[in-house]
Amino acid sequence: MTSQHDAVEVITTKRDRGTLSDSQIDWVIDAYTRGAVADEQMSALAMAILLNGMERHEIARWTAAMIASGERMDFSSLSRPTADKHSTGGVGDKITLPLAPLVAACGVAVPQLSGRGLGHTGGTLDKLESIPGWRATLSNDEMFAQLEEVGAVICAAGDGLAPADKKLYALRDVTATVEAIPLIASSIMSKKIAEGTGALVLDVKVGSGAFMKDQARARELAETMVALGKDAGVHTVALLTDMGTPLGLTAGNAIEVAESVEVLAGGGPGDVVELTLALAREMLAGAGRGDVDPADKLADGSAMDVWKAMIRAQGGDPDAALPVARESHVVTAPTSGVLASLDAMAVGMAAWRLGAGRARKEDPVQAGAGVVWHARPGDEVRAGQPLFTLLTDEPERFDRALASLEGGYEIAADAARGDVGGRTLLIDRVD
Amino acid sequence: MTSQHDAVEVITTKRDRGTLSDSQIDWVIDAYTRGAVADEQMSALAMAILLNGMERHEIARWTAAMIASGERMDFSSLSRPTADKHSTGGVGDKITLPLAPLVAACGVAVPQLSGRGLGHTGGTLDKLESIPGWRATLSNDEMFAQLEEVGAVICAAGDGLAPADKKLYALRDVTATVEAIPLIASSIMSKKIAEGTGALVLDVKVGSGAFMKDQARARELAETMVALGKDAGVHTVALLTDMGTPLGLTAGNAIEVAESVEVLAGGGPGDVVELTLALAREMLAGAGRGDVDPADKLADGSAMDVWKAMIRAQGGDPDAALPVARESHVVTAPTSGVLASLDAMAVGMAAWRLGAGRARKEDPVQAGAGVVWHARPGDEVRAGQPLFTLLTDEPERFDRALASLEGGYEIAADAARGDVGGRTLLIDRVD
Repeated sequence: MTSQHDAVEVITTKRDRGTLSDSQIDWVIDAYTRGAVADEQMSALAMAILLNGMERHEIARWTAAMIASGERMDFSSLSRPTADKHSTGGVGDKITLPLAPLVAACGVAVPQLSGRGLGHTGGTLDKLESIPGWRATLSNDEMFAQLEEVGAVICAAGDGLAPADKKLYALRDVTATVEAIPLIASSIMSKKIAEGTGALVLDVKVGSGAFMKDQARARELAETMVALGKDAGVHTVALLTDMGTPLGLTAGNAIEVAESVEVLAGGGPGDVVELTLALAREMLAGAGRGDVDPADKLADGSAMDVWKAMIRAQGGDPDAALPVARESHVVTAPTSGVLASLDAMAVGMAAWRLGAGRARKEDPVQAGAGVVWHARPGDEVRAGQPLFTLLTDEPERFDRALASLEGGYEIAADAARGDVGGRTLLIDRVD
Repeated sequence: MTSQHDAVEVITTKRDRGTLSDSQIDWVIDAYTRGAVADEQMSALAMAILLNGMERHEIARWTAAMIASGERMDFSSLSRPTADKHSTGGVGDKITLPLAPLVAACGVAVPQLSGRGLGHTGGTLDKLESIPGWRATLSNDEMFAQLEEVGAVICAAGDGLAPADKKLYALRDVTATVEAIPLIASSIMSKKIAEGTGALVLDVKVGSGAFMKDQARARELAETMVALGKDAGVHTVALLTDMGTPLGLTAGNAIEVAESVEVLAGGGPGDVVELTLALAREMLAGAGRGDVDPADKLADGSAMDVWKAMIRAQGGDPDAALPVARESHVVTAPTSGVLASLDAMAVGMAAWRLGAGRARKEDPVQAGAGVVWHARPGDEVRAGQPLFTLLTDEPERFDRALASLEGGYEIAADAARGDVGGRTLLIDRVD
């Protein structure tokens, strides 16, 4: 299919700071997918890419080769335009849950293929699976029918999309080569482009709880992904958003579903509502429906109607009681003052250690586990008032979770209140 | 045994330009040898080492950890001091063959553990195996007895020495991570130190036919290895020697044995004799026998006596006729003039393509195959005189060998003779 190369030659090119040719890239991705390039060869190449970088056109070709390794979906037969969102992952990031039905309520179909959580950031499918009866796996026919009838689908990505990425992602995880911007960008974008969406909004998180701790690297990632999307004919925009502080007031599975339902009911924490609306506006604009105001669809209940239809279509009962953790532990404020900071990573690690996330991909998660925080930065607190509620089925997990939270928040003397700056949730926009 | 680490943490340290701790190095080498660190993790680490380097003390610890992965030999019970030589590999480099018996004839025991050839440079064991009956594999007891009785052994290194290096070397070969000076130096020195020699002379080749094409890198490698040897208590010296032009007049297996025997008989090409004597003097000085002049032992036939005894002790017949290739092809000089240059890589590739070397380590080699050249740079040649004789059992190999030689030599007009500089064989010395 492609001209013949060999792995050592391709690795050597990148090792010596050269530019990989189209033919080298096509060959190595195809050969790796087939097993003709070994894991130890691909990991050496990944490390060379991480340390020596890739030019924009190399990344584009690499992405195209990963797309070509599998099937591509095509939503052009749908009666509505499509839009999708991808978040690079954060703590308390339940935005997909209210966002997909909200955008669908505005007349744009949302085919949201999602993943499970690994480490301190949660997974959308794990959260939805806390709803009794809901199933993540749909056939392509079921997915198309649901998109046409309900307008929104959140389900597991099939194995057929970008199998090269699936294999490479697992390899990068064990070889300390996750953090290469060309590899992150091509991994995300190969799946999203193969998925066949017409418009795409990227939520690139910045801060302690995010994969990208600093803004310059987050911006570089955003620019790389937006260029890849545009080159592939997908209307792509990225927002850089704050993940130094966790989103909303909950991090877990069932408790994040409950918070999402509050938002759909017209309430919910201000930051979750703000980000949901900002992303919805970008998705609608990208899909040519910038005339619709999503705030109206929250207010009039139509977003909630789509949510319920979407959950039901996948076997779930949107009105059933959500699972509750068997044990809880309350952390109270040690002094009075103003909550000056709340660290996203500390909260994410605590939720993970309580059982909301998994250490290995084959681990189960607890539906009821997680962390609820009762104050946000800038809020006044009094000594002895509840600051956090920790939830788990296994009380022996409390100690390690409490250790994660230690040093993860600060209470400043009330006099210092003026010094606690407001949070800028929407940092920047890349298009 | 060592404190716990994990592979991703160790790779991340080096990826981010950090210094590996002693405990990280001990752990990763031990875990890799045991199979607890996977090949794909070690290859990512090797690429990070290649691109980000290692400090001197990291290289020393890495070497020590590879030695600790296996057994160590101890020659202190021998009645004679020991000295060994290692060459980084070149074309026509048969020096070990006359050198080992020569140094033994001077009263120093030479335990020369050698390897087989891969690619364009030949292997000492492949050459000796062209002698009818000779065997490369000895038990430790046989090796000690031969060292005591004959004074010289050239045999295959046992699997017990530095097994981590054996595994890592095979991995580097397929992952384009051979060319890292810290990994080359630790690979060579871990084997040589584990081998237990008292003195060591390194022949670091520089030029087209060598692994190191430029002098600065060759010197860096030599300095790194000399420091490692000294730190381990081995008297270590390195010579930087020219490998732009091949050594002697032959590159192959049986034909190099024949040339070595000429040297032992008091004749042979001048450069082979010069390098053999220079290395012998360094080995003798390192072993405390700098008072003996090895030239005398060539002249009085005692080096030849040791050679014959050494070959016989390993089952070979030193007086048997050597194998001869079934086919030969002569290349004649196209014009008259002076041979201005002869490229070592071109000759090495031709010999390899004729069947003297192997492409994969499981391939056989032809005992009779190789290249004989009839002029050396600076020699006058006449149009039509034989320049090269190509030897092989398989005449279909001639075409590709001839292609290798093309452009590999230059004949200058006789008037330009003064411009053909003499070769500096011994470039530098590092101690």
